[in-house]
Amino acid sequence: MAVRPEITLRVTRGVTRLFTELDWSHVTEMPLRSGRRVDVMALDPAGEIIVVEVKSDMADYLADRKWHEYLDFCDRFFFAVAPDFPRDQLPDDPKCGLILADQYEAVIFREAETDKLNAARRKSLTLKLARTAARRLTALLEVPPGQPPA
Amino acid sequence: MAVRPEITLRVTRGVTRLFTELDWSHVTEMPLRSGRRVDVMALDPAGEIIVVEVKSDMADYLADRKWHEYLDFCDRFFFAVAPDFPRDQLPDDPKCGLILADQYEAVIFREAETDKLNAARRKSLTLKLARTAARRLTALLEVPPGQPPA
Repeated sequence: MAVRPEITLRVTRGVTRLFTELDWSHVTEMPLRSGRRVDVMALDPAGEIIVVEVKSDMADYLADRKWHEYLDFCDRFFFAVAPDFPRDQLPDDPKCGLILADQYEAVIFREAETDKLNAARRKSLTLKLARTAARRLTALLEVPPGQPPA
Repeated sequence: MAVRPEITLRVTRGVTRLFTELDWSHVTEMPLRSGRRVDVMALDPAGEIIVVEVKSDMADYLADRKWHEYLDFCDRFFFAVAPDFPRDQLPDDPKCGLILADQYEAVIFREAETDKLNAARRKSLTLKLARTAARRLTALLEVPPGQPPA
């Protein structure tokens, strides 16, 4: 049986592959103003913001029952779990979508109802995602693979 | 004497280092709707958009006299050139700033007057930069350095 960090990595990888296929550009471990990080934040071509929280097992899920707070940071919210996660324990709420994922692929098992962000919040989140992604990209490109930093 | 593509790379590298210091998150070779690409596009912490066109030599500059068109895609516009570029040949216009750069560093030699984008254009450019940076980051992260694609 895979341990928790490994399950989280696998599920996250499946989610990011699905999102790439859907053309939902995304970053992982996206920091929010609150100090919290969301596991995946995506921007679809129209600028809609999707947030995903990955839960590796029930203990991980039970340690974080504040999923309603994530709704303030997205138009659509999903939990993502491995196929063998006990899904009947997850919230039965139309605003809470569900993605099933392993390290190779993922499917949207239950859609999330859209709850539109206001314009100011969308603007600030889009800017934050843009700056986070650009900064990480620059950091990766600055040092060519296999070479020490200048 | 360095050849043109090498000068472009060096000047671009100096600009990106300066922008990182200034906390202006940026991407290079940013595609625009028009099919054109700008050499560097940056977002400052307040969401202001800065565009830089790198010119390696006079021939490169003379081949592209349409710099006014870039003003539609930014709040501030700069040319960036190597220190030995004949600067007196560049436009004498307050909307056209100037950055001098080599591969190690860069300085804003002349500030650019701000010409604010309208809200709709700013929104679409910020979204485009976010999605471009996130997509490139994902592509780089998908294949760990030194490993073949899965």
